[in-house]
Amino acid sequence: MIRMFGMDVDGVLSQGGIFYGDMGLELKCFHAHDGMGITLVRKAGIIPFIITGRQSAAVVRRALDLGIAEVHQGIDNKLACLRAVVSKHGVSLDQVAYVGDDLPDLEVMLQVGFPIAVGDARDQVKQVAKFVTVSVGGRGGVREACEWVLKLNGQWEGLVSQYGSGGEPGDRRG
Amino acid sequence: MIRMFGMDVDGVLSQGGIFYGDMGLELKCFHAHDGMGITLVRKAGIIPFIITGRQSAAVVRRALDLGIAEVHQGIDNKLACLRAVVSKHGVSLDQVAYVGDDLPDLEVMLQVGFPIAVGDARDQVKQVAKFVTVSVGGRGGVREACEWVLKLNGQWEGLVSQYGSGGEPGDRRG
Amino acid sequence: MIRMFGMDVDGVLSQGGIFYGDMGLELKCFHAHDGMGITLVRKAGIIPFIITGRQSAAVVRRALDLGIAEVHQGIDNKLACLRAVVSKHGVSLDQVAYVGDDLPDLEVMLQVGFPIAVGDARDQVKQVAKFVTVSVGGRGGVREACEWVLKLNGQWEGLVSQYGSGGEPGDRRG
Amino acid sequence: MIRMFGMDVDGVLSQGGIFYGDMGLELKCFHAHDGMGITLVRKAGIIPFIITGRQSAAVVRRALDLGIAEVHQGIDNKLACLRAVVSKHGVSLDQVAYVGDDLPDLEVMLQVGFPIAVGDARDQVKQVAKFVTVSVGGRGGVREACEWVLKLNGQWEGLVSQYGSGGEPGDRRG
Repeated sequence: MIRMFGMDVDGVLSQGGIFYGDMGLELKCFHAHDGMGITLVRKAGIIPFIITGRQSAAVVRRALDLGIAEVHQGIDNKLACLRAVVSKHGVSLDQVAYVGDDLPDLEVMLQVGFPIAVGDARDQVKQVAKFVTVSVGGRGGVREACEWVLKLNGQWEGLVSQYGSGGEPGDRRG
Repeated sequence: MIRMFGMDVDGVLSQGGIFYGDMGLELKCFHAHDGMGITLVRKAGIIPFIITGRQSAAVVRRALDLGIAEVHQGIDNKLACLRAVVSKHGVSLDQVAYVGDDLPDLEVMLQVGFPIAVGDARDQVKQVAKFVTVSVGGRGGVREACEWVLKLNGQWEGLVSQYGSGGEPGDRRG
Repeated sequence: MIRMFGMDVDGVLSQGGIFYGDMGLELKCFHAHDGMGITLVRKAGIIPFIITGRQSAAVVRRALDLGIAEVHQGIDNKLACLRAVVSKHGVSLDQVAYVGDDLPDLEVMLQVGFPIAVGDARDQVKQVAKFVTVSVGGRGGVREACEWVLKLNGQWEGLVSQYGSGGEPGDRRG
Repeated sequence: MIRMFGMDVDGVLSQGGIFYGDMGLELKCFHAHDGMGITLVRKAGIIPFIITGRQSAAVVRRALDLGIAEVHQGIDNKLACLRAVVSKHGVSLDQVAYVGDDLPDLEVMLQVGFPIAVGDARDQVKQVAKFVTVSVGGRGGVREACEWVLKLNGQWEGLVSQYGSGGEPGDRRG
């Protein structure tokens, strides 16, 4: 049973492209399908979390959108952060999925039970992943990862059947 | 005869990508070809409308551009909203086309006569659609949907022939 | 001999995607390769011009970058605008190239000697074009159109040979 | 041994697309993978530098991110700038790699020992390059160029092995 779902940001939850303007303006691009994936993961009782080496207000806002309470930015030592987050929730590393795309994600991916690489991850990252998505980072890769996790957990069919059936409204924003 | 043309926003009328910056800045990306499609639909007397779970100023502005008067944002219960909108215009559900891309659109798509999926819609959405566009959401998918509707209505040839013939100017902005 | 080079904006000089934010913020995306193409066209003595149905500050700024003096925005009657622009420069319509992508460009393209369609133009536009670029609008389509014009004029080889030869500096910004 | 790694900006370090808004707003889009590549290059003791004909605050900020001290913007004569930069560091031109994409880069590429073209560079640029990346500019082209340089220098394996081994933290931001 996978109980936590972790992600890097740039190139995973957001597109690898980072938009810079004048006076410190920075934009990140997130995808509605990925957002819906995290909504489904949360509905299944799996705890989403973010660990990223960089820091931006855009990530805080997107996390707020999606109900991600565990947001860890500006992290140099991702492994130490991972251990702290999972132990806080009483989850063991082999119950954790983590989606990465580049070399700094390797140390975390090598420790969790379900390392996942997005479709445009670097080769070294794909090599250690148990699942490589077809979609790329920031454009559906996280959604695919969410569905893979929910299927492994046997929770996918139940969740999907709630849509299109006139089931309970609410909590359906991408 | 199709009399109303409905759309979701993120991943349908706009690209699935949502751009976030500092201080609440949010950008959506709309496509000129899709805008022209809605202009054609309006010229044909078909009423366009928007139903979306999220809320942003960008949608209001784009709707203003394109003369879409029925803009319903922040909607949790899309089905109730759909029923209210069509009955207000004296249109029955089987005279309505609706373009969607993800699970929250299913409940609406299952009720209308002409459910349409954009090219990068999730599989569950494509399965219930009567037409799946080649182009993706936010990049021509809506245009293709508009042309499909106009052809079904037998209105396409007449509309297109007005262009390139030195016909009446005005109302040509994408 | 082609003496003027005209363009639509959205979907031609800029990407078809239009970015909207709060408080009227609007962004357009132009491409460095297209900019270099227009620089080459200007160096060859061909006059570039813009005719577009929409209006934005971004277009003015990009025109300034590239030395495009003839910028006509908010134009409903593109044909009347075209006639005024070319006659002002003593150029006849058969000496004009024009790059378009959608139905509102048809009336202009049908009048000029060298109508060009970008790679992702609508089918009706491609059908009237003498040249269809491989690259799409806002991402190299205009550059390809510029090179096609310069080659037809027999000016391409001379221009390109100035680069990489340590030739005169200046005027090399994309 | 390659001792310096130079880059153009628009179409190379950033995407060819340049975003313009109102009131002078300009955005450039950089890629996290490219940033990691430059981090690796710097770790190997190779000096990165930027020479570009345009000028923007976004480039300064991205250079700050990545520890690029040699940032030369608004340069008309790229060749003179190149000579000044390399001689300042006591490096000869045949120890320099330079990544370009368009005609104005040719004069520099013809002088350095290791000219590199991104995957969507103009043909004239690809023809003079010793290496053409598969990835395009602003989306992984620079990362590929960095890895090619590090492999030529025999420094790649050593650098990569530091990741995923729980090696020293820090300096891992994309």
